[in-house]
Amino acid sequence: MAEKKVSDYIAAFLADQGVRHIFGIVGAGNAQTFDAITRLGFTEIICVHHEQAAVMAAIAYYRITGKVSVALLTTGGGSVNGVTGVVNAWMDSMPVVVISGNENSRFTLAENKLRIWGVQGFDSPYMVSKVTKWSERLMEPAKIVNVISKAYSIASAPRTGPVWLDIPMNVQAALVDSEKLESVVPWVPEMEANPENLPAGIMNCQNGVSAVQKMLDASHRPVLWLGHGIRLSGAADRVQQFVEALQIPTLISWQACDILDADHPFCFGRAGVYGQRAANFVLQNCDALICIGTRLAIPQVGYDMTEFARSAQIAMVDVDSDELLKHGDKIQVPILSDAGKFIDNLLKHIKEPFSRSPWLKQCEYYRQQYPIVGPEHTDMKDESGTCFMNSYRFMQKLERYFHNDQIVVTDMGTALLSGHQVLGFKTGQRMVTSTGLGEMGFGLPGAIGAAIAAGREVLCLNCDGGMMMNLQELQTVAHHNLPVKIIIFNNDGYLMIKHTQKALFEGRYSGTDKKSGVSCPDFSKLAYAFGFPSFQIRTWEEMASIMPKVQAAQGPVICEVFTHPEQPFVPKLSLVPQKDGSIISPPLEDLSPLLPRAEMKENMLIGLHQKSNSLEIGTLD
Amino acid sequence: MAEKKVSDYIAAFLADQGVRHIFGIVGAGNAQTFDAITRLGFTEIICVHHEQAAVMAAIAYYRITGKVSVALLTTGGGSVNGVTGVVNAWMDSMPVVVISGNENSRFTLAENKLRIWGVQGFDSPYMVSKVTKWSERLMEPAKIVNVISKAYSIASAPRTGPVWLDIPMNVQAALVDSEKLESVVPWVPEMEANPENLPAGIMNCQNGVSAVQKMLDASHRPVLWLGHGIRLSGAADRVQQFVEALQIPTLISWQACDILDADHPFCFGRAGVYGQRAANFVLQNCDALICIGTRLAIPQVGYDMTEFARSAQIAMVDVDSDELLKHGDKIQVPILSDAGKFIDNLLKHIKEPFSRSPWLKQCEYYRQQYPIVGPEHTDMKDESGTCFMNSYRFMQKLERYFHNDQIVVTDMGTALLSGHQVLGFKTGQRMVTSTGLGEMGFGLPGAIGAAIAAGREVLCLNCDGGMMMNLQELQTVAHHNLPVKIIIFNNDGYLMIKHTQKALFEGRYSGTDKKSGVSCPDFSKLAYAFGFPSFQIRTWEEMASIMPKVQAAQGPVICEVFTHPEQPFVPKLSLVPQKDGSIISPPLEDLSPLLPRAEMKENMLIGLHQKSNSLEIGTLD
Repeated sequence: MAEKKVSDYIAAFLADQGVRHIFGIVGAGNAQTFDAITRLGFTEIICVHHEQAAVMAAIAYYRITGKVSVALLTTGGGSVNGVTGVVNAWMDSMPVVVISGNENSRFTLAENKLRIWGVQGFDSPYMVSKVTKWSERLMEPAKIVNVISKAYSIASAPRTGPVWLDIPMNVQAALVDSEKLESVVPWVPEMEANPENLPAGIMNCQNGVSAVQKMLDASHRPVLWLGHGIRLSGAADRVQQFVEALQIPTLISWQACDILDADHPFCFGRAGVYGQRAANFVLQNCDALICIGTRLAIPQVGYDMTEFARSAQIAMVDVDSDELLKHGDKIQVPILSDAGKFIDNLLKHIKEPFSRSPWLKQCEYYRQQYPIVGPEHTDMKDESGTCFMNSYRFMQKLERYFHNDQIVVTDMGTALLSGHQVLGFKTGQRMVTSTGLGEMGFGLPGAIGAAIAAGREVLCLNCDGGMMMNLQELQTVAHHNLPVKIIIFNNDGYLMIKHTQKALFEGRYSGTDKKSGVSCPDFSKLAYAFGFPSFQIRTWEEMASIMPKVQAAQGPVICEVFTHPEQPFVPKLSLVPQKDGSIISPPLEDLSPLLPRAEMKENMLIGLHQKSNSLEIGTLD
Repeated sequence: MAEKKVSDYIAAFLADQGVRHIFGIVGAGNAQTFDAITRLGFTEIICVHHEQAAVMAAIAYYRITGKVSVALLTTGGGSVNGVTGVVNAWMDSMPVVVISGNENSRFTLAENKLRIWGVQGFDSPYMVSKVTKWSERLMEPAKIVNVISKAYSIASAPRTGPVWLDIPMNVQAALVDSEKLESVVPWVPEMEANPENLPAGIMNCQNGVSAVQKMLDASHRPVLWLGHGIRLSGAADRVQQFVEALQIPTLISWQACDILDADHPFCFGRAGVYGQRAANFVLQNCDALICIGTRLAIPQVGYDMTEFARSAQIAMVDVDSDELLKHGDKIQVPILSDAGKFIDNLLKHIKEPFSRSPWLKQCEYYRQQYPIVGPEHTDMKDESGTCFMNSYRFMQKLERYFHNDQIVVTDMGTALLSGHQVLGFKTGQRMVTSTGLGEMGFGLPGAIGAAIAAGREVLCLNCDGGMMMNLQELQTVAHHNLPVKIIIFNNDGYLMIKHTQKALFEGRYSGTDKKSGVSCPDFSKLAYAFGFPSFQIRTWEEMASIMPKVQAAQGPVICEVFTHPEQPFVPKLSLVPQKDGSIISPPLEDLSPLLPRAEMKENMLIGLHQKSNSLEIGTLD
């Protein structure tokens, strides 16, 4: 007979799971659990300065460790502040357990109609109920171990995602006899519990493997598209073997851009709306497309599915049947399966590689013909004649400074677009981004979480707008003297939105740059305030002299990189205005700046799309 | 026949309402509305750097202008970032209209089960459905004017509160013929629509006025307690007349601490858990308590309602019947009415004042005997012998530097507790705080909203922890060169939680100061980074020389005030440990540091509470 506080059971559970770090901010609502964890001494709580950063850091911590991660929030503002991170985790399938505090349980009753539950309390599980796999309030102390076990199980079961466990402060403090604890009831995910319970038209893994084999046997131009679901399923380490066994041209999604060595001969890059030209040609000309663990999001497939891989039969392997069904008949072979299980099963059945020599040569031709950084990525001058480095070229050079085990974390804007379009990752290197919610501000707390998880240096590619959204976390970096190297692309405001305003509003800017109402501070002065060395890069010569210093530094560094305030993000699938005033939305292979029509015709083995054929390129400036 | 975009109707509606400023951040999801508002040129959009700040600034803007205020958010992260402010507005009854963007309306369907609606989209109205009066997504462009009118009406009808209107980006861009617009259907609040539809046991205004008159006639020791509901109902300007007509000792709530001149002879201050001693004696000894527009929150009434004003009959005037009913039988006279309407009605019926001379003298005695700043507020030395100013004494002196029309905005911690316990406000001065959610971080964006609204200087009382939560907004201050004077009370971390940890965990700190895992930057260096002059105050001499400079500055200023890292927040209703190991929770009048029992006995006209009688004071150190 041993009585312990609920908070002590939480601390012990985290230790049992081997959780070395969690992220949070202390408050009246979670002080008990902070104390219990600190007293036990196994798990370190990394204290951030805004709860959104706690959840975002936990996300990056998971991305690096592959283990369910934890954020510990207090009641009231402390809970609601964390919700942005939760939506990120929901959209990117991140198994994060959020433990929130709340008022005394006599107030936290669903039937309590008051706007405030006691002091500062509100119904946080309800708020996140549509952006978590499971959210619940623990009202009975004796259930703690069973409930937190369940939270872990649900978070980590396919499709992984966040859960939210709300524990009123008196429940955290309640004593429970270990013999009176509710037993842990193993939680079995729906898919495991009812493997035969498939939605209409969807195949299971076994049938899917056969169907894919047939597709590949019949195909002349097969393509693999690999996504982050593979890493989520724990199969990232089998990707290279898999690709080499199949010998099929392979595309990787943005989230999975570090899953296959960018220099691997079968790796043909990243396709999409902001795709690499070669990759888009590979994708659009294939006749069999096998998508594994990638959800075929709009940024990947464009806006019109009838134009997407239009000569291909498409198979899609996913753990979420809603994702399999979202594109309707376009996915002829939808397979509900864990990505790793599918890969292992297919591997077992492969007798010989599916390599198609002419197709491989064609893909190789695309790659040679359309290097990732091309003539559209020239440096630009502003009105005063100052020349700015192009961010795509910058990324190309930046890659050379990477360590062999480099971890890169990006924010949005230039960091995201130029970074994901250009940077190639070698085996052992990692790239971490929020691709679903794509919220500004992920970069810095993401870098913190990754640095804590890996215990080593992280390169944070940020932008002026994104830095501002979690500026306070510079202090968390300073407090722990984390080796986070922050590159800030400074382009005077929100460049992506400036391009939107150019396209839609005849260039009327509003709230996108200094003149139109928004500005950023001098980041070098900020670096000084936080005690970091800082650098500024304006020219290629400065890059060559400064980047080695940035990478050689032992602690945090801020390095501002100035790019042109109007630099285009290209290549990109863009609307093309015509002389008659009409606007044409070309198919996915026809990226802007547009190529000559003859060249397009030659590249499109499946034939030039009618819309591409009728485009007047001359209307582009 | 004139076609306009939905976003143009929004811009025109704001202009029609005379809305000169709104707060937001541009993104793909609200670019159309940003453009329309900017094009029309009536309403200025103040661009902040995190959406939580947009909503918080809008809240303060309402507090100063008394007009429904607006925040304009984009989709995805931009929406969810704003939710913290929405919960603040919900709890403090702030009529803020949040307009959020979302993905194309073909994705934003409740039945869409995908984790992401298109790109970055999610169901934001659902997320805020329990923390707003109304949340909806506009799917039909022709409804825009009716729906936004409804949003305004709902927000501003009693009980005021936030609403959330989500408009998919294609709907914002949709053209609507003005003749095809859905007509505006006037929205009538429940209470107006069915004035006789009262919950059981609740009186209407008219009956309430009679009941209160009877209470007062029979009373020897009446007390008025006035709250922020009076300002919400637009009756703040009649308070002085009302009080003078009644001639009853008057208490004011924290939110209403600027509703009656602190020096008014009938104003006896603020009672509560962190109350003024005199005010608590006035409250606890009364025999008739008339509460108007104050919700009798836990920080006001303590934890045990049986001990609260235990000799009094209590009347409560509120627009929210749930608030009237929450204390059960304790409120003998619950009156469902707009505060202003009740005040005006009661005024009409008052033939002569209810002044009770002995009781007024007794209240005056309490006030003389227990000045707000007392012997418990002495300066303290740390281990090294450095002497720190006491924050309560600091507030007392600070008040002398106020302008006649001073606006003060506070954050949490020292700023909140010392500020609300000490600062007195004269007619024409304003005090703005988040009291319901009480989230750290409100101070800075609140000061921005107030400065924009008033077009004049604001004093922002902040603390190190609270500054961090919205640190990025220093740039908004800088961009607009706002006359915001920021006083930062620096006490090495989260002082309130340190006291909790002292009380509950034998002084084990975790995540509350530098040693236990959390630290703050040098705010003077930060001031330099943002281009503000900065000051540091460590002694009374420095205060005397520096405060005039702070108040005389034309633009932003940061002034750090160093207080003892362990300074107690007193007086306070505290648990009192006894020699036998038991803990006694004394009644509301018996604040710590405890007074001698004989003195308490003398002060308690209604008799010393049994628990107070049995307290061993000696166990306090």
